[in-house]
Amino acid sequence: MSETNPKQEEETMQIGMIGLGRMGGNMVQRLRAAGHEVVGYDRDPEVSDVEDLAELIGRLEAPRTVWVMVPAGEATQATVSELGAMLEPGDLVIEGGNSRYTDDVPNAALLAETGIGYLDCGVSGGVWGAEGGYGLMVGGDADLVAHAMPIFDALRPAGPRGEGFTHAGGVGAGHYAKMVHNGIEYGLMHAYAEGWELLQTGGVVTDVAGCFKAWTRGTVVRSWLLDLLVKALEEAPDLAGVDEYTTDSGEGRWTLEEAVSKSVPMPVLAAALFARFASRQPNSPSMQMVSALRGQFGGHAIVRSE
Amino acid sequence: MSETNPKQEEETMQIGMIGLGRMGGNMVQRLRAAGHEVVGYDRDPEVSDVEDLAELIGRLEAPRTVWVMVPAGEATQATVSELGAMLEPGDLVIEGGNSRYTDDVPNAALLAETGIGYLDCGVSGGVWGAEGGYGLMVGGDADLVAHAMPIFDALRPAGPRGEGFTHAGGVGAGHYAKMVHNGIEYGLMHAYAEGWELLQTGGVVTDVAGCFKAWTRGTVVRSWLLDLLVKALEEAPDLAGVDEYTTDSGEGRWTLEEAVSKSVPMPVLAAALFARFASRQPNSPSMQMVSALRGQFGGHAIVRSE
Amino acid sequence: MSETNPKQEEETMQIGMIGLGRMGGNMVQRLRAAGHEVVGYDRDPEVSDVEDLAELIGRLEAPRTVWVMVPAGEATQATVSELGAMLEPGDLVIEGGNSRYTDDVPNAALLAETGIGYLDCGVSGGVWGAEGGYGLMVGGDADLVAHAMPIFDALRPAGPRGEGFTHAGGVGAGHYAKMVHNGIEYGLMHAYAEGWELLQTGGVVTDVAGCFKAWTRGTVVRSWLLDLLVKALEEAPDLAGVDEYTTDSGEGRWTLEEAVSKSVPMPVLAAALFARFASRQPNSPSMQMVSALRGQFGGHAIVRSE
Amino acid sequence: MSETNPKQEEETMQIGMIGLGRMGGNMVQRLRAAGHEVVGYDRDPEVSDVEDLAELIGRLEAPRTVWVMVPAGEATQATVSELGAMLEPGDLVIEGGNSRYTDDVPNAALLAETGIGYLDCGVSGGVWGAEGGYGLMVGGDADLVAHAMPIFDALRPAGPRGEGFTHAGGVGAGHYAKMVHNGIEYGLMHAYAEGWELLQTGGVVTDVAGCFKAWTRGTVVRSWLLDLLVKALEEAPDLAGVDEYTTDSGEGRWTLEEAVSKSVPMPVLAAALFARFASRQPNSPSMQMVSALRGQFGGHAIVRSE
Repeated sequence: MSETNPKQEEETMQIGMIGLGRMGGNMVQRLRAAGHEVVGYDRDPEVSDVEDLAELIGRLEAPRTVWVMVPAGEATQATVSELGAMLEPGDLVIEGGNSRYTDDVPNAALLAETGIGYLDCGVSGGVWGAEGGYGLMVGGDADLVAHAMPIFDALRPAGPRGEGFTHAGGVGAGHYAKMVHNGIEYGLMHAYAEGWELLQTGGVVTDVAGCFKAWTRGTVVRSWLLDLLVKALEEAPDLAGVDEYTTDSGEGRWTLEEAVSKSVPMPVLAAALFARFASRQPNSPSMQMVSALRGQFGGHAIVRSE
Repeated sequence: MSETNPKQEEETMQIGMIGLGRMGGNMVQRLRAAGHEVVGYDRDPEVSDVEDLAELIGRLEAPRTVWVMVPAGEATQATVSELGAMLEPGDLVIEGGNSRYTDDVPNAALLAETGIGYLDCGVSGGVWGAEGGYGLMVGGDADLVAHAMPIFDALRPAGPRGEGFTHAGGVGAGHYAKMVHNGIEYGLMHAYAEGWELLQTGGVVTDVAGCFKAWTRGTVVRSWLLDLLVKALEEAPDLAGVDEYTTDSGEGRWTLEEAVSKSVPMPVLAAALFARFASRQPNSPSMQMVSALRGQFGGHAIVRSE
Repeated sequence: MSETNPKQEEETMQIGMIGLGRMGGNMVQRLRAAGHEVVGYDRDPEVSDVEDLAELIGRLEAPRTVWVMVPAGEATQATVSELGAMLEPGDLVIEGGNSRYTDDVPNAALLAETGIGYLDCGVSGGVWGAEGGYGLMVGGDADLVAHAMPIFDALRPAGPRGEGFTHAGGVGAGHYAKMVHNGIEYGLMHAYAEGWELLQTGGVVTDVAGCFKAWTRGTVVRSWLLDLLVKALEEAPDLAGVDEYTTDSGEGRWTLEEAVSKSVPMPVLAAALFARFASRQPNSPSMQMVSALRGQFGGHAIVRSE
Repeated sequence: MSETNPKQEEETMQIGMIGLGRMGGNMVQRLRAAGHEVVGYDRDPEVSDVEDLAELIGRLEAPRTVWVMVPAGEATQATVSELGAMLEPGDLVIEGGNSRYTDDVPNAALLAETGIGYLDCGVSGGVWGAEGGYGLMVGGDADLVAHAMPIFDALRPAGPRGEGFTHAGGVGAGHYAKMVHNGIEYGLMHAYAEGWELLQTGGVVTDVAGCFKAWTRGTVVRSWLLDLLVKALEEAPDLAGVDEYTTDSGEGRWTLEEAVSKSVPMPVLAAALFARFASRQPNSPSMQMVSALRGQFGGHAIVRSE
């Protein structure tokens, strides 16, 4: 917690955090380290400060600020609905999950019916954000953003506010920015991964892990992801024991769909996303067909699966 | 052999065929059906008409025409070299294998040293060419092409000469045309294969094989490859038992390398070629790295391979 | 109109056709040539047989069959709604436009409220279908399909019913099949297009148009699209005067979105679709950024646009 | 020159630098700041310390170390040849240009004939390396690497040697590593560029430049290239005036060719490279063909170029 922003300690707030998992739990610690008063709620009573949402709301003074940090989709929607029924005019909900940006306008409209404010916030940094701070992208009205700024300042990395925080636009813009951020991330990861495969396969560079480590400083390709890649190779030399099977949490798909709807070519993202799909196929149907076709016209041998 | 070109029977030739495998053997039958006199040589004495190249050459009257139809690469180069040492000025070598076009100019130069002519010929049609005729793409001097035309006419499909045969250009142009033909073929096959995978996976179309069959007439996507696809699905419903593992014989790679050297974007070919590479990887190294990276920053679970 | 199916002439029907544009107008001619009685309606009084939908419906005996062949989207939805208010129980609507398959279940439900049947039909073949017949993919209940079969038989190519026609599945399956058909079409066209560009650029094949013409028979890549390509090169040698600017009518996008939602890798389709997007960009924003980045780290010269 | 490695100042060397352009010139300054004695030669007498190669060699005491930093290809090959004829047994040539790794083994063999040592060195960091140090990847014998280590230590960034420097393997491994490094760089740049295009086009994020700036700290996508992107947007808001036209210096092509020869799928690199090719085409031939094909079957309007 070494890199919090000292000046923010002067202006502290009260906040409710709903969802104390890997992300929410770490964020609470970072907020408390900055002097904020946090009441946390989680379905798991082991980690929860309160028994239920009603108690959480009761423990906060109006106007309240509540941060929702639960799994995107149904869980988030259910929580926002409940808050709409329980909070009061003037309260503020910050939706910080990995939600699709198209959920935000309906969420904001729902809460506005009872005078509750709404901000959406994309949060980047993963498990490392606890220490160094999270990259934050916020969507919503400027006055609500200003009101919650002490919270954002505590969560973002120390240093100039514009590096690590952006008020990206109106409602939805925070999650939109996070969506594109993750789409870029897909491409970056796959670019490194391809290069690693070629170095491993090529056989010319004899110390592949050392080569990646050497790239971490001075080169054009240096980055935080590269630092993680070096760490991964140290933990599992040659990635022995790591399976290709890779899931996706939706943001790559949403980005590609948004690109398609806006006529924006994103071949790098598409390639990275398709490689994930393929990593989960034990026997690619497309390639079964290519093999079968070659067998038809060329008499090429078809490999039979067991 | 129902579709040979009757008018060609008037002008028959003598030809030596070296290599009596799936392609060469079928071509000999088609040539003989058209009235040509063929002496065939193969390393396998079971199928060979002569004991060795010397006997083959001895059985042909000068000026001789010899068609080389052996595996591309070393075998073809060795055969051309031997012919260069054994044939006489005025003889003609037609190199019809799946060779890289860059081999042709050196081959022609070698043979020209002793006054031997050279044509390169790309041959398409696979095992089906025996009956319907082969698509032929020829490179070399026009007078040599004219000389060998009765041979080409016998091999190509019946009908207008320009449909099924082209004198594509100078030495190498025949194999160059065949290379690009195969590069296109990669893309066509993968386009159908992708579509099949989506139909299979989508679950909306209940008779997928019937749908492909319906596309064979009247639609924009009808083609000979589609006919083969329908046949493949009839032989192996849902392609059960077909493994994704698919080899490549080099022409896709050559086409992509040529595209790179000429600054021509060929994303469709690249995608189809990379999918073949991936089909042979039991555990994609690139995706191992993507999985490892996600594990680093997000605490996403990594699947361990056994 | 030389290739209609003679046996169908025995069983003729009455049908209303809404939309007499390039597709609908041609289909009416083909239906009439097969002996069916067609009443056509179009907003353009010059081509319309009736003044309005009411008159069209009045001219048909119950139970009526009405084919909707108007632009996909709003126009189609409006027409289906109007028909729902005007037709009677037992009537049948066939929606044959280039609609998204997700529209079909709502359409069918709407019409079912008043006892009207619904079939969706994907129609392929373009302007050539008038003469050779259209490839048809139909979704909906089997009894409705059987009822309308004389119509489908008249529209499809002569020959076995399963080649040119498929009952693809339940409501929506016809448009789903057509969507995937068009997705495949994108890839096929781009595969040929890439190959053409390489042949043109490579400079080794001296008669590029002749080479494509030669591929139309005997080769693995022969297809109807290849025939059209040859025709296009005959009409505009080297495609002089043709601009790269290419629109898309939506089906490629829908197919890619469906692939993304079903985790199916479709890199060939994506490449073909992105190339269309790029063809409409006078100055690619992505490449502006790449150029700007290179200028930053390498001091590479940036080209300034005027 | 604030970040040199102080401990290296104890062990200083004499070195000749051939080529005093943007890279070589900066490197000389960095070497001199570290206490090394550098004699520089350039064809441009304004910047050269000596009149010709002979004088440069005369000014160095044997055993000499000479760094070649001239344009890759002919200029580099000519310089290595000249040095082979002028240097003495025991001298060392370090080839630091952006050369293809396949040149290195022949270069080393040529110099070995007269007892001259050879190292190849990939240098990354561009114009920024002067201040922060260059990322170095070296190929060749370990004893030669050890001998030249004071030079490498002066050029690389301050800090642990393994971060910023790697002895990547035998002769050629340095340029091989640099080749793959640049291949990765293509993908990284395009990933950011795509994301930028989507943010710009999407219209949801209202402060796009601010969003990228916010990503520079705390996020998963932070990197040095991202810092440069932010700088580029500050210098040219919305990249106004920047043309899409982007050249390539060969390393992306070499990486893709190596991937093809090693059966390694690199779709991200391929996409980035093809986008560069396309950026230089005023009228994409592929898309001309797609447009022409659509005109054939669908009667879609073809846009005519002027």
